[in-house]
Amino acid sequence: MNQEFLSGKGGEREKGRAMPTRHLKLTVAYDGSAFHGWQEQPAPLQVRTVQGVMRERLQKLTGEDVSPLAASRTDAGVHARGQVVRIVTAATIPLDRWPQAANSVLPPDVAVREAVEVPPAFHPILDATWKTYAYTLLNSPVRSPRWRQYSLHVPYALEVGAMDQAAAFLLGTHDFSSFCAAGSGARTRTRTVYAARVTAAGPVLRFTITADGFLYHMVRIIVGTLLLVGQGKLRPPAMAEILAAKDRNAAGPTAPPHGLCLEQVGYAK
Amino acid sequence: MNQEFLSGKGGEREKGRAMPTRHLKLTVAYDGSAFHGWQEQPAPLQVRTVQGVMRERLQKLTGEDVSPLAASRTDAGVHARGQVVRIVTAATIPLDRWPQAANSVLPPDVAVREAVEVPPAFHPILDATWKTYAYTLLNSPVRSPRWRQYSLHVPYALEVGAMDQAAAFLLGTHDFSSFCAAGSGARTRTRTVYAARVTAAGPVLRFTITADGFLYHMVRIIVGTLLLVGQGKLRPPAMAEILAAKDRNAAGPTAPPHGLCLEQVGYAK
Repeated sequence: MNQEFLSGKGGEREKGRAMPTRHLKLTVAYDGSAFHGWQEQPAPLQVRTVQGVMRERLQKLTGEDVSPLAASRTDAGVHARGQVVRIVTAATIPLDRWPQAANSVLPPDVAVREAVEVPPAFHPILDATWKTYAYTLLNSPVRSPRWRQYSLHVPYALEVGAMDQAAAFLLGTHDFSSFCAAGSGARTRTRTVYAARVTAAGPVLRFTITADGFLYHMVRIIVGTLLLVGQGKLRPPAMAEILAAKDRNAAGPTAPPHGLCLEQVGYAK
Repeated sequence: MNQEFLSGKGGEREKGRAMPTRHLKLTVAYDGSAFHGWQEQPAPLQVRTVQGVMRERLQKLTGEDVSPLAASRTDAGVHARGQVVRIVTAATIPLDRWPQAANSVLPPDVAVREAVEVPPAFHPILDATWKTYAYTLLNSPVRSPRWRQYSLHVPYALEVGAMDQAAAFLLGTHDFSSFCAAGSGARTRTRTVYAARVTAAGPVLRFTITADGFLYHMVRIIVGTLLLVGQGKLRPPAMAEILAAKDRNAAGPTAPPHGLCLEQVGYAK
């Protein structure tokens, strides 16, 4: 459907400056703690989702259903610093005012960081060429109230060097079936990992991974497996064997969602 | 009242190893967001306080009223990384197990980081020789869901260098009446500031201040005044004039509590 020449309606119409419909690429951050993930759920489920909140609040701002579509359907509890959300709008809000206008109507746990105009053909999922996720671990005998919503507390000692070595076995193009939860609808389970590191800053450990795409629960299963390496229950080369097995049962448990954050989504142009 | 030779009761008694009462100095962290401050309120007020939660939960652990007494009565919404809390207990929990034992009964937004035994004469308020507070500002055109509970969002540009210069005027011994809210019961308003800096790491600004003591709302009024300096509404030397005025009306507004954190409390021995 070509929406480009539909006139604007709602919030900005009274100014008599109806604009052609624009497609905007928003960079969005959220605290996933109080959301049941990105994606809106069917009507009988009254759950709070980022997509639902954005649709509802931006409708108040623009008078339109802006049809928010995200690069990644993050799970319940997962955070985002650089989610990409495409919206379609005829509102006359200038581009550089969009973040503040949107943030004035969005709740405190969601914020638009940036807005740029994209061609109508832009598709946030299909056009994404890479994504970076980070998983944060607090490796300390005692838990931290401050970090509790953004990290997994690991009270036992972890060998960071071994975990980083293990992560290196993920680099390149592999069948990641061993790191894919049941219920994935992916046509192919082959993905290319461009970067994967485990770094430490004091008690805070971060696993960051960049790939051309991710399977269902892929990062969280990788983290659950790296934790076995960190405890010395697996040696780093075991990662290669687990990949080769192409069997979910070969990998470790699924780490909980609250340590995970979608950092960035990359596009070719 | 000499409690030293009272025998233990409650949780540990069944082991038949009643111990002399010990006085413990706990280092405590909390997220102040969901607390009405440290101090318990009179009975009709059913508000959640850190002192009330610690008393109740540690009673479950030990069977005793451990009489938690803190170095600083932090206000509603203020956080702590290094609050010092003295408790009195006859429980036989070994000292190095105390943090984990306490954290197993405390809610997620409070944690004991360390426990050391102190003489019965130790008084967390009277014996404190210095305290350090930090106030965090997020200086960015757009707000951040992640930082919202731990920083004040300042969307306009701030001159960090000018704020740091202004903070230097606080160093030394002064009458801080201009930075003291009405309602303070302090006998003297003279305090000695040992360190006061404003630093920036990207968009995150931190004001840290160490002094031998603080008046009611002192840090928050200082921050409210430094924000005027950061905006260019006051020049750094104005801090000296404001100090000299000894008048609350000479200083800036009181910054909100959620950017403030009690970092550390120091003792001579």
